[in-house]
Amino acid sequence: MAAQKIYVAVVGVGLVGSELIAQLLALPSSPFRLISLTSTTRTLFSSTSLTSTWKSQLAASSDKPDLTKLSQQLSALVSESKVALIDNTSSEDVAKMYPTWLKAGISVITPNKKAFSGDKSLYDQIIAAIRSPTGGRVYNEATVGAGLPVISTLKDLVGTGDKIVKIEGVFSGTMSYIFNEFSTGKSDGPAFSAVVKLAREKGYTEPHPADDLNGFDVARKLTILARTISTYSLSATSLPELDSFAAVKTASLIPSALENIPTGDEFIARLPEFDAEFNELRTKASQDGQVLRFVGVVDPVNGIVRAGLERYPTTHPFATSLGGSDNIIMFHTERYGARPLIVQGAGAGAAVTAMGVLGDLLKLV
Amino acid sequence: MAAQKIYVAVVGVGLVGSELIAQLLALPSSPFRLISLTSTTRTLFSSTSLTSTWKSQLAASSDKPDLTKLSQQLSALVSESKVALIDNTSSEDVAKMYPTWLKAGISVITPNKKAFSGDKSLYDQIIAAIRSPTGGRVYNEATVGAGLPVISTLKDLVGTGDKIVKIEGVFSGTMSYIFNEFSTGKSDGPAFSAVVKLAREKGYTEPHPADDLNGFDVARKLTILARTISTYSLSATSLPELDSFAAVKTASLIPSALENIPTGDEFIARLPEFDAEFNELRTKASQDGQVLRFVGVVDPVNGIVRAGLERYPTTHPFATSLGGSDNIIMFHTERYGARPLIVQGAGAGAAVTAMGVLGDLLKLV
Repeated sequence: MAAQKIYVAVVGVGLVGSELIAQLLALPSSPFRLISLTSTTRTLFSSTSLTSTWKSQLAASSDKPDLTKLSQQLSALVSESKVALIDNTSSEDVAKMYPTWLKAGISVITPNKKAFSGDKSLYDQIIAAIRSPTGGRVYNEATVGAGLPVISTLKDLVGTGDKIVKIEGVFSGTMSYIFNEFSTGKSDGPAFSAVVKLAREKGYTEPHPADDLNGFDVARKLTILARTISTYSLSATSLPELDSFAAVKTASLIPSALENIPTGDEFIARLPEFDAEFNELRTKASQDGQVLRFVGVVDPVNGIVRAGLERYPTTHPFATSLGGSDNIIMFHTERYGARPLIVQGAGAGAAVTAMGVLGDLLKLV
Repeated sequence: MAAQKIYVAVVGVGLVGSELIAQLLALPSSPFRLISLTSTTRTLFSSTSLTSTWKSQLAASSDKPDLTKLSQQLSALVSESKVALIDNTSSEDVAKMYPTWLKAGISVITPNKKAFSGDKSLYDQIIAAIRSPTGGRVYNEATVGAGLPVISTLKDLVGTGDKIVKIEGVFSGTMSYIFNEFSTGKSDGPAFSAVVKLAREKGYTEPHPADDLNGFDVARKLTILARTISTYSLSATSLPELDSFAAVKTASLIPSALENIPTGDEFIARLPEFDAEFNELRTKASQDGQVLRFVGVVDPVNGIVRAGLERYPTTHPFATSLGGSDNIIMFHTERYGARPLIVQGAGAGAAVTAMGVLGDLLKLV
């Protein structure tokens, strides 16, 4: 790993961004030159490579974030060397810049799901841009399963001519934790509201747990997988054209009476009213030797993309093998036949997410 | 996928080779130009791209295999375009050519374990060659777990600074099948010899089952993983320098009285003499709520690389999640903490092996 240098600009320097920069700066004989940082309040463009003092340098900058100016600054470097922009935000506004950057020959690497699971028109512009001979590359491994090899595996499968029969998985670390704790196959156990409360206290849920229980995070990941299949498969599938993640058939876990509760505290306070309902689901599943799991399914054969609570036998890997806040993804394909290819492990966290991003960046070398 | 063309030479056109060529020729708007084929008896070098008629063209060739001449022919193309050689053999002689090819700027892609698990000096020459500025690349994803993302995942982990605590897995499809059938956690079941006999009849073992039961295939895969860790880690480990796979602590399953049985038939005929021994192992494991699995372990912390029969609780993924002739690989790492990253699925077979090879080839685009 020597040769040609690669300029790197980082947008978003929170938990994942800081970890990414730390991992990046720790690479020995690295070809990467970190030249630009952008936070929510400041930006910095440096003619020399930034080092471990980047935080204080950014704090000392008086420049406000300006993505248009950043585009110009980076575009000017493309003729000289490879340029990569890493978006560690979850911002829709940053995502909307990808086509501009990619068209200019800047590669985009990101764990931000917005561009790949939002408006189909934005996604189409991105694919058109990377297919142009002078376009940059786009890598988004960390949008699904963080550092787990999910997107790369899917691209390898369909890009070499395998046919996806079904992808089925637990895609949300939060949902994984909640149901691994709540539904173990026994007829009783902790109350649903108690599990959600504890998950929130441990920092596993968003501040407002409804932002997890609505299933939108899973729907976004399924949209990314479905679009990846449609874009990279060698043969046509029956998958629907998803206008956005909102088109995924998603069975929210938010009780309808709690749909518009403004705060997380209030939501948690009222959730026990619905414990009996969840308890009944668990009891019924248990009577059939099953557990409850919040899963996502992408089925290109039958044209189905759906997220929701489903039941699995207690002998199924979703019951036996899962723990903590693990993700698990099963790829049922033509070549893998009766037994799926399975990827499992932590699907969230700054270190493993940053690793997924850095792994993508290394593909540019 | 358009732009620059990539010349491809294929050595080895058996099951995996034929499947690889079929998958390669099925790629739409492919940059690859298949220009050379070599079997055990013939070779063909074509000035135009070979197509689906390759078998008859090769059969019509009167040229004998000549790897030295092939080197010259391919080297002459390097200045013009990228050149890849795909070795689908399991030949040591072909493996010994890798340094020559790589130094000439030819990339090598292969499921052949020999070069990466044999003499350390050959491996060192390969690594030196790919590190030279004009050297080709080497990709060997399919040497471990066929099409499963094992090598790429390991490189991503250690290449981004993660530290491997332990890799533990069932790396042999044959051993997986044998013990999934033989040891299910119950105290009884089919005789060991009956399971091996059936596995052989199904074509899951080598013609001589001792070639599986000696554990060498697993030892070779562990050598590849250990060397990958040592070569690509950002920090030092305590792993031993393996002179070859023979340095792996391997507990063969061949009863010592059967160590030099010349034929598979004779071996199968005498194996029942040792059923009582295997039965006792199974019974003892079962009494402790455990199953038997033939596993491989690479432990960079304690400097251990070993293959052999080990016991796992019936609740462990090696007991609950495995089936058929699946491979399963657990990566315990610093970043993945208490719960490992797991990859599971078919680890052998022409279609998935060829897919692993073609996935590697696509990295050259």
